[in-house]
Amino acid sequence: MSQITRQQAAERVMARADALAAISETPNALTRVYLSTQHLQANQLVGQWMSQAGMTVWQDSVGNICGRYEGEQEGAPAVLLGSHLDTVRNAGRYDGMLGVLTAIEVVDSLHQQEKRLAQAIEIVGFCDEEGTRFGITLLGSRGLTGTWPESWLDKCDANGVCVAQAMVLAGLDPARVPLAARNKDDFSAYLELHIEQGPCLEQQRLALGVVEAINGARRLNCRFTGEAGHAGTVPMAHRKDALAASAEWMVMIESTTLQHGGNLVATVGELRCLPGAVNVIPGEVALSLDIRGPQDAPLDVLLNTLLAQAQTIATRRGLSFSAEEFYRIAATPCDAHLQTRLGEAVAAVQGCTVSLPSGAGHDAIAMAERWPVGMLFVRCKGGVSHHPAESVMAEDVAQAIDAFTRAVTSLT
Amino acid sequence: MSQITRQQAAERVMARADALAAISETPNALTRVYLSTQHLQANQLVGQWMSQAGMTVWQDSVGNICGRYEGEQEGAPAVLLGSHLDTVRNAGRYDGMLGVLTAIEVVDSLHQQEKRLAQAIEIVGFCDEEGTRFGITLLGSRGLTGTWPESWLDKCDANGVCVAQAMVLAGLDPARVPLAARNKDDFSAYLELHIEQGPCLEQQRLALGVVEAINGARRLNCRFTGEAGHAGTVPMAHRKDALAASAEWMVMIESTTLQHGGNLVATVGELRCLPGAVNVIPGEVALSLDIRGPQDAPLDVLLNTLLAQAQTIATRRGLSFSAEEFYRIAATPCDAHLQTRLGEAVAAVQGCTVSLPSGAGHDAIAMAERWPVGMLFVRCKGGVSHHPAESVMAEDVAQAIDAFTRAVTSLT
Repeated sequence: MSQITRQQAAERVMARADALAAISETPNALTRVYLSTQHLQANQLVGQWMSQAGMTVWQDSVGNICGRYEGEQEGAPAVLLGSHLDTVRNAGRYDGMLGVLTAIEVVDSLHQQEKRLAQAIEIVGFCDEEGTRFGITLLGSRGLTGTWPESWLDKCDANGVCVAQAMVLAGLDPARVPLAARNKDDFSAYLELHIEQGPCLEQQRLALGVVEAINGARRLNCRFTGEAGHAGTVPMAHRKDALAASAEWMVMIESTTLQHGGNLVATVGELRCLPGAVNVIPGEVALSLDIRGPQDAPLDVLLNTLLAQAQTIATRRGLSFSAEEFYRIAATPCDAHLQTRLGEAVAAVQGCTVSLPSGAGHDAIAMAERWPVGMLFVRCKGGVSHHPAESVMAEDVAQAIDAFTRAVTSLT
Repeated sequence: MSQITRQQAAERVMARADALAAISETPNALTRVYLSTQHLQANQLVGQWMSQAGMTVWQDSVGNICGRYEGEQEGAPAVLLGSHLDTVRNAGRYDGMLGVLTAIEVVDSLHQQEKRLAQAIEIVGFCDEEGTRFGITLLGSRGLTGTWPESWLDKCDANGVCVAQAMVLAGLDPARVPLAARNKDDFSAYLELHIEQGPCLEQQRLALGVVEAINGARRLNCRFTGEAGHAGTVPMAHRKDALAASAEWMVMIESTTLQHGGNLVATVGELRCLPGAVNVIPGEVALSLDIRGPQDAPLDVLLNTLLAQAQTIATRRGLSFSAEEFYRIAATPCDAHLQTRLGEAVAAVQGCTVSLPSGAGHDAIAMAERWPVGMLFVRCKGGVSHHPAESVMAEDVAQAIDAFTRAVTSLT
């Protein structure tokens, strides 16, 4: 792909991202949720762009906007490219949309050259990944995998409108949800391009990276229970200070996780002291632990190590410790072959490649249940996402389109 | 003092503490505040007990109940013994009262033996040390030192009744407050016996200890400011986690204070994370620091060390740190000569003596502005105070009366 071609494509992507950002339920804070008029408007616009790229376009029965660019032989399996078109409230304009818009450029470049590949290319703009409206996530991708639980139709938004009612209002038939499911044979692979939503590429001064896995995660509510006491009268050596124990543990959480390597992260994001007064030794501390990593086994090893450390600290200090896991999601490894192909394409464009985990969730989590998945990350400014300040550079987008096109071509 | 005499005296003290505990504005939660009917009732009862011990009794112009047992020559300077008769809400029955009741036993034993000392003995039951009603403390002792600020008369309670109005209702004349002040020559020393309100004596299996000083204290609001971030996407090595920095500091606060020795204590009692969510790296942490010790100079050395450590941690991690002192009280050293005398008396009674700081404040803080002060601590169960479970053993009280009597006798 020539420098000039990819630059023009990138500029079009930037302009289209701006055009989509204008389709919002609130004028100055981009918000576009499932089954809203804005959802349908965005689908229509994206469908037009797909058509212009030579694709057959349809909206499926859950509200995903879909396009197909036939291969050399009609009806061949497709490489599916996609991401989502819905947003969080007061969102950025690239999270999700960038993956759909760059995919259209991949197809458009083939279309301009009147080139057909051995496989077809399909593009999907998923209708709901964020779960902003109904509190349930990955509705679009789980439409394609055919794994909507029946209960989802009854989930209500903040105004008491349930999914089934909202579908009818949007011209969709709740009874036809299962028809969105695609056969396993329809796709050979699912590729998703997405902004990194983290600072790694920026820190390595690279535009692109290949995702090794979408992190697994565990979240726990933890508690140290010691003995409250008078901050003036209880000597240091005789305290059962729950906050001092927590501090010792938090230092170990950080150092142990760092030593462990393997792209594991652990975070204490919330901490509350009881009774919580300047002149009282904390008798009890409740704190959260969020731990994530690209592979489940090392993640569980680290988690067990950290919990054992907490128990050791508590025992030595004469306190008690408890932890309750309230959230767990398995890691989603990306397909090895797709990682290789994406890595080769990235290296061809930027001279080298880098492998990194995805800290956030993506449609690829659902898609990986049925198809091999690969993900390409694009640098975003300061790692900021889910915020109006979300920003990508047109030069990076140009490289992304180039690498994405190379990878898709190499697969088909 | 014979075993039997001091046991009888101790039993009387325990019974009198129970009798005073019955004088409460709420039947099942001992509460006796300044200028209440309960205050006047308690004064009357304590005055009767002073009279029975051969003392001349009067209530002074701020509401302290006072008694004098003349020495060999009328009008001689006195050793003043005392503590307070007011309470916190839902209080224990020994905090303050034990010092007044044991002082009466000291005088009573002399009275029984018809013994006069070179100096007189005075006893004061201070009217307000806790500051429960008007939010200002040490009203009784600062009446004797003549250091009531004029503004105190205008301080109001929760019902909008100010000190001056409450005095009138209690039969006192606000204009006569200055008359409570005593001349420097009136007293050679002030001695206060008090429950420890901490666990040191219990842990050393001792009934009595000599206070070296009433701790000085500093309180600060501290803050680490880093960068909030996504708990899943920011690698450990690139975080500016304000809670991780705080944890590192809190571990140093504990270890540095322990190493420092000298009965210094440091406490982080409150801590708040911002934004404070399980999946967000804390960008900001606000935490309190309460640091106390029996001598101001080592206390300030420790405080400066801790603040420098926080700054070093912040700088190394790329965060900022700030601290603002919002409370400071100087340490009140007890008089060396009085400590020696009290130590000799304690050693004579329990075989050894121990020196310890007072973590809590006492009337002796005010009294030390004008007179040499000494304090004797009595073991209390579990170090519990300001709570109905406050408890002392009659055997300990017997030893306390014995030691207190020996100390007073040795001074006069």
